[in-house]
Amino acid sequence: MPADDLPIVLDRDDPEPLAVQVADALRSAAGSGALRVGDRLSSTRALAARLGVSRTVTAAAYDQLLAEGWLAGRRGSGTFVTAAPRRGHRQPAGGRRPGATAAPAREPAVVDLAAGRPCLDALDRAAWRRAWRAAAERPPTREPAYAGHPEFRRSVLDHLLRHRGLTAEPEQLLATSGTTAGVSEIAAALPAGSVVALEEPGYRRAAAALQERGLRVVPAAVDGNGLRVDRLPTGLAAVYCTPAHQFPLGSRLSADRRVALVERARAEGFLVLEDDYDGEMRYDVAPLPLLAALGPDVVAYLGTSSKLLTPALGVGWLVAPPELHSRLLAVRERTSIRPSPAGQLVFAALAEYGDLARHLRRLRAELTDRRRRVVEAFAGTGAPVLGDAAGGHLRVDLPSAAAEAAVIDGAGRAGVLLAGLGEYHGHPATVFGVSVGYAGPPGNQLDPAVAVVAELVRRAWSAG
Amino acid sequence: MPADDLPIVLDRDDPEPLAVQVADALRSAAGSGALRVGDRLSSTRALAARLGVSRTVTAAAYDQLLAEGWLAGRRGSGTFVTAAPRRGHRQPAGGRRPGATAAPAREPAVVDLAAGRPCLDALDRAAWRRAWRAAAERPPTREPAYAGHPEFRRSVLDHLLRHRGLTAEPEQLLATSGTTAGVSEIAAALPAGSVVALEEPGYRRAAAALQERGLRVVPAAVDGNGLRVDRLPTGLAAVYCTPAHQFPLGSRLSADRRVALVERARAEGFLVLEDDYDGEMRYDVAPLPLLAALGPDVVAYLGTSSKLLTPALGVGWLVAPPELHSRLLAVRERTSIRPSPAGQLVFAALAEYGDLARHLRRLRAELTDRRRRVVEAFAGTGAPVLGDAAGGHLRVDLPSAAAEAAVIDGAGRAGVLLAGLGEYHGHPATVFGVSVGYAGPPGNQLDPAVAVVAELVRRAWSAG
Repeated sequence: MPADDLPIVLDRDDPEPLAVQVADALRSAAGSGALRVGDRLSSTRALAARLGVSRTVTAAAYDQLLAEGWLAGRRGSGTFVTAAPRRGHRQPAGGRRPGATAAPAREPAVVDLAAGRPCLDALDRAAWRRAWRAAAERPPTREPAYAGHPEFRRSVLDHLLRHRGLTAEPEQLLATSGTTAGVSEIAAALPAGSVVALEEPGYRRAAAALQERGLRVVPAAVDGNGLRVDRLPTGLAAVYCTPAHQFPLGSRLSADRRVALVERARAEGFLVLEDDYDGEMRYDVAPLPLLAALGPDVVAYLGTSSKLLTPALGVGWLVAPPELHSRLLAVRERTSIRPSPAGQLVFAALAEYGDLARHLRRLRAELTDRRRRVVEAFAGTGAPVLGDAAGGHLRVDLPSAAAEAAVIDGAGRAGVLLAGLGEYHGHPATVFGVSVGYAGPPGNQLDPAVAVVAELVRRAWSAG
Repeated sequence: MPADDLPIVLDRDDPEPLAVQVADALRSAAGSGALRVGDRLSSTRALAARLGVSRTVTAAAYDQLLAEGWLAGRRGSGTFVTAAPRRGHRQPAGGRRPGATAAPAREPAVVDLAAGRPCLDALDRAAWRRAWRAAAERPPTREPAYAGHPEFRRSVLDHLLRHRGLTAEPEQLLATSGTTAGVSEIAAALPAGSVVALEEPGYRRAAAALQERGLRVVPAAVDGNGLRVDRLPTGLAAVYCTPAHQFPLGSRLSADRRVALVERARAEGFLVLEDDYDGEMRYDVAPLPLLAALGPDVVAYLGTSSKLLTPALGVGWLVAPPELHSRLLAVRERTSIRPSPAGQLVFAALAEYGDLARHLRRLRAELTDRRRRVVEAFAGTGAPVLGDAAGGHLRVDLPSAAAEAAVIDGAGRAGVLLAGLGEYHGHPATVFGVSVGYAGPPGNQLDPAVAVVAELVRRAWSAG
């Protein structure tokens, strides 16, 4: 069927944005064979005219499919179908898309269980739009503040106080464009060639950000209580860690180790980078004090809106001891490099209307439920399930590297994307298993995907 | 008068946003003595309730005044008046603000004639709001593209083709969060300790961004035709320059030097960083080919929306030779450091609706008129006025460093902020004068401020 004749009927009463409806219809058409690899699509302008929608709608739909890899385009020569989606991919639950060409789900969906994805299901689109509209009312500034928009900074301080128990002064806070951007700025303030200890296994992108600034990264041992503070080497310039929910193992740094880490930092003069990437989520366990609360003089605290809301805002924050804060701010002023203020305005508006607090409540309820379902799914597999007291991912241990590879491969063949713990090691792996992120997938796709993984895990343990 | 009793009357038919009206009224109250230093203001919530507006409006007004330095606030203890504005500061032209408490302008305004400020007068607020609302409709992404939002990249390629005559492929383009952020990323890809030549006088923030990455910056001579390509030293890893409108001198790099620079770059294997910060503006002169068009294999092109629109979006772009592009993208993927997507969506929506092209036409008309007025104001002073063929600032030469200091000081006393050419030298100054930025100030404040500077310049030359 020529692409121009595709029957796409939009439902304007559907709460889903028109762009999503158009993207779904095109994806379905490719899945059903109505569109084939190599077919050329109408221009966004022509399709918009035919459907009676703005070109923004069709362009957004094409962008989504370009980003997903189903389409490829070249300016001047059009947009082409490059791959047929596995059937059922991103198809909404039954009957909600009356206009889309039907594509019965005969092959499994691609479901991404990577750790660290945002839970878009918990995001209220009406609140999201309201925040952007409020941001639109702010007069554009001639020169944005290097430390971040004043209102953003105020809303972050309030968020930290209410949800993380951290009392910070405005003079300690900097807006960032994300966690590793903050790590990079701090790394630039450390002497070239200094040594930084980073959890092993750990967040390799933070390691890359440190190395990219010319620092040397050495492994720091972790166990079920987080970082082994007693086994940190001496001579460190800094320690990077994830105390709220060790990435990727999921353990929480115990209270005595928190105190010990801050004491060692003071005694030995090193800086602690506390990455609190998903610290807002916690289940059935008492809160532990932030390192930044115990040692505001030696801890740089890093937070982000990426897991909490969505990486689409591109905003994070950094609370630093005053001397470090001044150095970071001075570099920004000297170089004019500063985080983009646009997403900060949206975040501030979300906070201002109370939508951020409402979102957090919804997110916690949703993740509490999802976590219960995931833990139950693995209950009969014989595998140790750990790291589920906080955050949006947990860890399922496996007996060997071979078992880890087998589970990842098997899941991949069934359309389920999984990360093995091997990925998070900078040195030969010492812990084997998979990280199961349960925040990211649309709610109705989670259970079937987890069931696939649980069955593979069960087989791995019974074979072992 | 207690702050709570301030008579603030808002005009909802006024095209100026309510937040601006509230800020103006408070500023006027401080200027007229109705509010005094040390007075505590109502909370944003209480003031919003009294005025019958949303708290967003009052919070934005307070933020504006906090950013301008008239107020100071501390969480929990309220917001206080810390300074009385010079009367007339940012007061709009006569009679447009019926509700604001009157504050007759008896002292001169503070007018900022720094180079590189955006021309907010040319920005259509309705189009601005429309773009943000359109951005609000985009579904938030689970994982933004490291190279930038696909639609943003498309709109930038279109902009470069239409307005800068540059044909670039999507595979060459990266979104950035601004010009010096792009410089910093490129610098990180050069071998540590490499030598980069930068125009002298030149953009010192770019020099700082290069040095912050461990590179050595050496001066490159400039004259009335831009960079002296024949006097570049050998052994360079890169050359940073501003060919469209040399910053700060304002000269345009001549066609033969453009060709020569690209040829030397190819012969000697160095990279050229072409900073095209205000290349969209040009008056009464023919366009010259971009370096990136002459030498796409050896030139990294840097652009920004900061001068074109406003730094509030925090978006820029970078067109790089494929090999460099791949290296920069690989670092982003490895570290997860990427520019915030929020402002990219707004820029793309502005472009999509045709508002960006309309804005450019308005901006050119406005700056053409302003430039004529400024050139005329300096006509009788005896000072050479140069660098006015492009951009949003020109240069007025002075006979000595002492004359430069005298003009800057005199202007400062009259409430006019000016940058001297001395500021842009990394070595002892060789050119004396001031840079006059005419894009930034509100239109009605430009002529009086320029008249002050012109009189000071006239005196400097007649004394010399």
